Amino acid sequence: MSERPPIPRATVKRLSLYLRGLERHQAEGAVTVSSRTLGSDLGITDAQVRRDLGYFGQFGQPGIGYSVDGLIPRIKSILKIDREWNAAVFGVGNIGRALLNYPRFGPKGFHIAAAFDINESIIGTKVGACQVCSLADLEEQVLAAEIDIGILCVPMPVAQEVADRMVTAGIRGVLNFTPRRIDVGKDVDVVSVDFSRALEQLAYQVAAADGED
Amino acid sequence: MSERPPIPRATVKRLSLYLRGLERHQAEGAVTVSSRTLGSDLGITDAQVRRDLGYFGQFGQPGIGYSVDGLIPRIKSILKIDREWNAAVFGVGNIGRALLNYPRFGPKGFHIAAAFDINESIIGTKVGACQVCSLADLEEQVLAAEIDIGILCVPMPVAQEVADRMVTAGIRGVLNFTPRRIDVGKDVDVVSVDFSRALEQLAYQVAAADGED
Repeated sequence: MSERPPIPRATVKRLSLYLRGLERHQAEGAVTVSSRTLGSDLGITDAQVRRDLGYFGQFGQPGIGYSVDGLIPRIKSILKIDREWNAAVFGVGNIGRALLNYPRFGPKGFHIAAAFDINESIIGTKVGACQVCSLADLEEQVLAAEIDIGILCVPMPVAQEVADRMVTAGIRGVLNFTPRRIDVGKDVDVVSVDFSRALEQLAYQVAAADGED
Repeated sequence: MSERPPIPRATVKRLSLYLRGLERHQAEGAVTVSSRTLGSDLGITDAQVRRDLGYFGQFGQPGIGYSVDGLIPRIKSILKIDREWNAAVFGVGNIGRALLNYPRFGPKGFHIAAAFDINESIIGTKVGACQVCSLADLEEQVLAAEIDIGILCVPMPVAQEVADRMVTAGIRGVLNFTPRRIDVGKDVDVVSVDFSRALEQLAYQVAAADGED
């Protein structure tokens, strides 16, 4: 349908990194951002940023930069992520509970539509906006609620088993909060959240600031 | 002391990104990784990767690549993060509790040395390896336990106030789990953990896989 020339694969990959940078700058209150800043975030040149964004007709204004609020939806549309996603939380422990009460998912287009646990004392109770279902009903509920994404917060020993059932039930992506690697086959995507990585990033920055003293 | 020529700033920035990529490949069981793979992760060329790693004498073997287990400690040493860090958890709610029980911090050199809350019913109880202290004793305990890094998990309305006290007490970096931006001044570093960002990354991947169908 589109008459736009194909965008190189490496550029598409960088778009999602630009998007994350832009959203961080937006959260920090920035209205515009320069190609130099966007490039510096990723360790690439400002010329590369301008070339990438130029592929789809986005040109920053010299001395002003790109409009943060204008560029974000444009990149989301190109990346085909300007849609709603249904997600479910598997395992209503500490992390699961925190995620069910997390205020930022809704505004970003993520609807937490179901929650599962095996603990009889919490099945049927409401956590955040969800009534906790029995994990025994996983297949039925994933289908009924049209869940795209599963958020895996179960104890480590059962992580693979629950992931297998999620995949069989038709889930397309798994956000893995367990500290073990899970195998989901090639048709399902996984992103693992490793809290130690965030701490490391902070430690780099503190150590780098020491180096500048 | 060192006779090594100075490493360009942009290269140093990329080193921490390479490190994260290498650790992911390590977690996935990779023994070696090619400059092409490392570059592709960041959307840069394999030539750039080889040039960056060449600055400190790391050369991949043609057709084999870089040794994952060899390169990781080397980069950590260059980034000066091959040391131990003392961290404290501020706010023992769902997230705080999960972090106090998180098994991956210790092996990565992060020692959770203290936990704080205002809830009288949990002050003095043990969560993970820490006895929960009163937030009233923040200044004294941060000094006594030589805390470098504060992990902020308090309710949003008190986030800035607790962050201010952390900074005054001498904390060097803040890992912010609250969904609001905090201001810590220019001498302290902040990394914010936004769970919606991880979900977005997963959504990109699922949407991209759709595009390839």
